[in-house]
This record gives sequence, C-alpha cells and structure tokens, in this order.
Amino acid sequence: VYTLGIDVGSTASKCIILKDGKEIVAKSLIDVGAGTSGPQRAIDAVLEAAGMTRDQMAYVLATGYGRNSLMGLADKQMSELSCHARGASFLFPEAHTVIDIGGQDVKVLRIENGTMTNFQMNDKCAAGTGRFLDVMARVLEVRVEDLGDLGAQSKKHVGISSTCTVFAESEVISQLSMGTDKCDIINGIHHSVAGRVAGLAHRIGVVKDLVMTGGVAQNRGVVSALEEELGCPILTSPLTQYNGALGAALFAWQAATR
Amino acid sequence: VYTLGIDVGSTASKCIILKDGKEIVAKSLIDVGAGTSGPQRAIDAVLEAAGMTRDQMAYVLATGYGRNSLMGLADKQMSELSCHARGASFLFPEAHTVIDIGGQDVKVLRIENGTMTNFQMNDKCAAGTGRFLDVMARVLEVRVEDLGDLGAQSKKHVGISSTCTVFAESEVISQLSMGTDKCDIINGIHHSVAGRVAGLAHRIGVVKDLVMTGGVAQNRGVVSALEEELGCPILTSPLTQYNGALGAALFAWQAATR
Ligand code: SF4
Repeated sequence: VYTLGIDVGSTASKCIILKDGKEIVAKSLIDVGAGTSGPQRAIDAVLEAAGMTRDQMAYVLATGYGRNSLMGLADKQMSELSCHARGASFLFPEAHTVIDIGGQDVKVLRIENGTMTNFQMNDKCAAGTGRFLDVMARVLEVRVEDLGDLGAQSKKHVGISSTCTVFAESEVISQLSMGTDKCDIINGIHHSVAGRVAGLAHRIGVVKDLVMTGGVAQNRGVVSALEEELGCPILTSPLTQYNGALGAALFAWQAATR
Repeated sequence: VYTLGIDVGSTASKCIILKDGKEIVAKSLIDVGAGTSGPQRAIDAVLEAAGMTRDQMAYVLATGYGRNSLMGLADKQMSELSCHARGASFLFPEAHTVIDIGGQDVKVLRIENGTMTNFQMNDKCAAGTGRFLDVMARVLEVRVEDLGDLGAQSKKHVGISSTCTVFAESEVISQLSMGTDKCDIINGIHHSVAGRVAGLAHRIGVVKDLVMTGGVAQNRGVVSALEEELGCPILTSPLTQYNGALGAALFAWQAATR
C-alpha cells in the first residue's frame, strides 16, 4: 500500500511517498508554497522520483498552511499540528517536544504516546521565524542557506537587543556600518531567533527528547543557539524538513488501511 | 524669563523657546534624532529663529528617547511621558487622553489636572508606529508625508490583515502586484495603524478630550481612521509635533522660577 503526504507551507511544498506506513519511498521539496504551482510541482516530482502515478496512491493527505488549496488533489486535509507530531514520533520514537520553525511561524508541540497533547504557536509576529532570517540574510547580502556556516565562524559576541524584525534589521545595518564582522552579526541573529523561540517553548515546558523540524532546523547556528538557551540537546536530521508531509503520509496510511 | 525645551526623538529633534512659561517665541524641527548632530542643530536653529543666544536661556530642559546624550547642553533631563502630558495640557486644557505616535513607539497617556496619571506604551514592536508607515511608504514608492493626502483619495476598502510590519509589507506587495490602487492600499495601512493603536488605548480607556501628538498626527488618514476606531473626535494641530519640547520648556520655566 502506497500513500502520499503533502505539506503545503508558506514558503515550500513538500511530499513524501510511504510504502505500507513504514518505508519512505520518495520525497520532494519545491521552494514555493501556498498560492503557487509549488504544491502541484511537488506532487509531480515525488511521483516521478518514485516512478509511480497518482492512481497507484491508495490515499493522499494534505496538511500545512495551504492545505485547503488542494481540495481536488487530496483525499483529505488535516491540521499540521497533528501531522508534525506524528512525523516526529516516526523519526524519533522518544520525541516528547517538537520545535518547528517554519517560513512564517513557530510551533512548539508536546507529544505523549505519539500524539500531540499541547502546543504553543506564533504566527502573528515575524520575529523568531524563517522570515526573520530571510530579512537579515538580505541585509547582510548572504544566502539564507549559508547563515549556519557563516555564523559558525564567529569569534566575538554581538548582541542584537531588539526582538522586532524591523528594529533588529536597523541594528544589523548600524553594526555593518560600524564595520562589525558579518559572521559575528549572524551569530547574534541566531541567538535572537533562539531567544524568541525559547520563550515560546518555556510556556509549555521542554521535555526530552527534543526534536527540531522545519526548514530552519537545517541551520546549525540556530540549533546550537537554541540548545544553549534551553540547556538541552536537540535531535534533528535533514529528513525533518519533510516532517509534516511524513506525518500526513502516515495518517494517509491509517485511513487507507482502516 | 526665556526657557528652552528640547525633545530628542528617535527620528527627529524638536525645540521650543518659551517666554515666561506662556508664549511660544520660536520652534525648530530637524529630521534626525538621537545619536546624530540633530539635537545640536535643532538648538542652533531655535536660537537663531528667536534671535537669541544660549546664555539668554534661564533654563534648558531635555526630554525624549535621546535626552541623555545632551548631558552637557541641558540643565536637566526629564521623562518624555511627563513632558508630553504637560505640553498637551498647555495646548488643549481639557485634554484627558493623549495618543502620541512617534517614529519608533506609541504612547497613550491619561491626564488628570495637567499631570500624567497612567500610561500604556509600545516600544518593542514596529507595528502601529511611524516606522510602520516608513516601511510601507518605501514599498509603495511614495513620500511618507504624502500618505495622508493619497489615502484620502481612496474609493474602496482594502483590508491589511496582518498586524506585523513584515507580514503586512508582503500583503502590500501582493496587493500592488494584483494592480490594487495605491490610494486604497494606503487607506488600508492607515486603518492597520489605527487598529493597533486603538488596542493600546483601550487598555487604559479613552476619556475626552482626546489629543493626538507626534509626527504621525500630521497624517490625517491615520487621525480619521483612529477617530473611526475609537468613536471619538481627536484634537490635534501642527504644533503637537513640538508637544514634548513644549512640555520640557514648561517644566524648564517651573525650574527657573522656583
Ligand atoms: S515585533 Fe516586529 S516582527 Fe513582531 S509583530 Fe511587531 S513588527 Fe512584526
């Protein structure tokens, strides 16, 4: 039995094809999300990678911010909170807390026995989200995917005192004009994101294992700053970018075999 | 007796020279604030406008965000909250609530008998401040001082659903790409500011007369959107830009004649 999960985020569309609810057969990630051709392209790409057709999928389940735009394409829609909890539990069976930093939001989930039991979310303020990093990368004239490696070269602590994206951007501009090293500024930016996200995590408490998912989890600077802030090791892997889609494919398998 | 009040804001420096604590002799406004030559230039400009010298000032009092940078120049520093309350009561004797939207913050003050008795302030988030308007003016490629007149030409309601400056900026960009009229977008922006500021005002309650001060009070679009939101007429005048400096000059007169 093959099932397909698709996660339509604000900035990327991700798909997973799962065999028998156990084995990841193929995955795809297209860097554009809701309101674009991204979701369709992600589906086409994952089917091609698997060498399969839509008809061979027993069940297609959509999740994420833009899931409702897939009415015709998916058999069902489901909240990304449930899917993220399910995906993280599959990848890390001992996961009890999931921190998901997406392109426009941050979610902290508590998991008991593979199910989400509590959560905190920020989707109103760009601070602490992927968008914050996008804004800073633009000002620093570096690629957002290079931030992690650049921040790792930092030798001096540079504090960014404003939490607000707009005010922090001005601080970064004035640091640049004072000749501060970019790597040090980037390290300060990672700590700003970590501080903001830690604030959210403290509201529900952090229980080990702590797993980090979403695109920003690929930035090792943010991950290590967050480990420092929370005083707790963080589990992650490149696969966690597909975490929502994976959860969707798992729920799809449940629906297909019920 | 001549006294000088200076208000060093985040984006502008303003001065007032007062005669006998009653009569405004001269004023100046320089469009750069704390950390620049703005404060000194504003002092030079107001003295020149009055045809007077620093020595003829019985007392110089500094207020505002950057007041502490004037250690050598002023006889005393004082919180801008007190100065704004005093200035507004001078201009509008029946003022009981003052809404001051500055370049980087928003303050709502309650006044009883000319003295500040309660306040609410936002200086952490750019939403609802002058900075929000600066960001939007840049995206729309119009001058921030033209926003009021342009918004007044709006014929259709365009809602900006995000409060966050960063997310609202994206909404504006996508409205522009859909060909929405700039004037309608600007009107939506004014309502966004008004909604945010009204939220702050409701926390302490609005008691008439309601006075609006600060640079943004010169934008009639924001003023009328805020009147709508609060269901209450707003008193303002071009002089309210100098409100903090005026309050400082009034306190200076008190100190000089004690
Ligand atoms: S603090 Fe800054 S980033 Fe957060 S909502 Fe306000 S404007 Fe947006």
